[in-house]
Amino acid sequence: MSIIYTIGLGSMGQGMALSLLRAGHEVYGFDPDNERLAKVTASGGHALTRKTPAADVLVCVVLNATQTQDALFGDDGWAKHLKSGGTIVSCATVAPDFAIQMEAKAQALGLHYLDAPISGGSVRAADGQLSIMASGTPAAFDGADKALMAMADTIHRLGDQAGPGSAMKAVNQLLAGVHIAAMGEALALATSQGLDLARVLDVIRVSAGTSWMFENRAPHVIDADYTPRSMINIWPKDLGIVTQIADTAKLPLPLTQTALDQYRAAADAGLGLEDDAAITKLIASSAGLRLPVDT
Amino acid sequence: MSIIYTIGLGSMGQGMALSLLRAGHEVYGFDPDNERLAKVTASGGHALTRKTPAADVLVCVVLNATQTQDALFGDDGWAKHLKSGGTIVSCATVAPDFAIQMEAKAQALGLHYLDAPISGGSVRAADGQLSIMASGTPAAFDGADKALMAMADTIHRLGDQAGPGSAMKAVNQLLAGVHIAAMGEALALATSQGLDLARVLDVIRVSAGTSWMFENRAPHVIDADYTPRSMINIWPKDLGIVTQIADTAKLPLPLTQTALDQYRAAADAGLGLEDDAAITKLIASSAGLRLPVDT
Repeated sequence: MSIIYTIGLGSMGQGMALSLLRAGHEVYGFDPDNERLAKVTASGGHALTRKTPAADVLVCVVLNATQTQDALFGDDGWAKHLKSGGTIVSCATVAPDFAIQMEAKAQALGLHYLDAPISGGSVRAADGQLSIMASGTPAAFDGADKALMAMADTIHRLGDQAGPGSAMKAVNQLLAGVHIAAMGEALALATSQGLDLARVLDVIRVSAGTSWMFENRAPHVIDADYTPRSMINIWPKDLGIVTQIADTAKLPLPLTQTALDQYRAAADAGLGLEDDAAITKLIASSAGLRLPVDT
Repeated sequence: MSIIYTIGLGSMGQGMALSLLRAGHEVYGFDPDNERLAKVTASGGHALTRKTPAADVLVCVVLNATQTQDALFGDDGWAKHLKSGGTIVSCATVAPDFAIQMEAKAQALGLHYLDAPISGGSVRAADGQLSIMASGTPAAFDGADKALMAMADTIHRLGDQAGPGSAMKAVNQLLAGVHIAAMGEALALATSQGLDLARVLDVIRVSAGTSWMFENRAPHVIDADYTPRSMINIWPKDLGIVTQIADTAKLPLPLTQTALDQYRAAADAGLGLEDDAAITKLIASSAGLRLPVDT
């Protein structure tokens, strides 16, 4: 049984904290939102405070690079509360260069650092069945091992230092983000041609045009259910990281850039807090098309 | 047993003609390329000539709308050689409006017309296991039934007149074409980050970023094998149809347009006759990245 801090108790971190608790760990959660924290303490976890015992592992599941930097190494950062030789598991989607910087800071404090972006959504987070795209030293993998076992059913071991984990996540986000936007165009085109969208899903599911995202998100459009499982607002951030990495490599990615522009336009149009399937609304509205409505 | 003409004996039509022969039909093939025709006659088929007996069914598997129009209703077109009440099964990817025009011409000759674009690739065509996205009158479906049974394992019945079949195919091609271009950007980005592409395929295959096209085409890049199963040159044509349909509906499709521009650039760069996975070469070369090479 390890002492594990979980920083960030949003849709992913919440389920990860509960998975760690189910595995028997002593979990200390932190989130500025007291309601989120209460769910963890109600399940046997504790609130992380300055008096909490030093941790073996810190799992950081915040939104972005800035929050990661602050949560770990800011003035009130938690890295210095780990045991000597403790391990940081950093899960936010960030640029590989940033992950490398964080690893260096951790190592300067005598800590191990696992570059460990996550994939799978909130349901699998709650079930302890995430995929983790991880890279780090063998010592970082060893230190994180028990926590990873509790949170994930698939651990991709991608390299011996920070960087490749975040690079792999960027590649996945490029594909996922473009595929959702392509779904939006496909459903708008189908609507313009008078096709029934439920039938389109049936056909595409067994055709060469299918994608994981199409099969997962098209039902949201068909059901007119834009309750956010994953928000539009995720994509300007994640595809922004992808294009930033690509810019550094002097690699033009016109398709990714176009998808990024579409998500930014959707956010500007007030769709930012809706499910990312709502990109379809942006496309359909440009031609005055009627999508299914909630009945 | 029916008398069936098969017009166009390329990578798809060839396998379809052989599937029809295996099912016991009397097949008359036509293709300007004598080698292709010889493969069909060597398997028990016949060369289609002006003296051939009148057909029950004509399966038209040519490249595009112009060839379809010429093969069916041109000066030397074959529609007039069908039995009265015979059925045309038209498989080329065309705009729905064009399919509606062809149906009207067929009906004016006392024939039935099935708008029947195909999907599945040449291997499944040879195995009689295509997917067919079909629409047409009940009489057209009845007339085509035995031929469809021999050529396909999945027949999507999408409407009672020509149009929806071709519209559905356009939706599928939008997705498939964008997904291949997205794969190209993803593999180029992965290369720029020093990731091993075979490992990337392993990870993406079980992640939210996967697509049918990614899993099918990424191995071509990893193996540096650009033998054309489906050529780059298909996509300026097929995505051109998609954007043409969308333009008519006043529907902007920025992602599809960007993918179309990429395929045109690839064709201009001399990649037109290579496998469509070669879109990755166009993207990688723009940043001077080295993809796997054939060893």
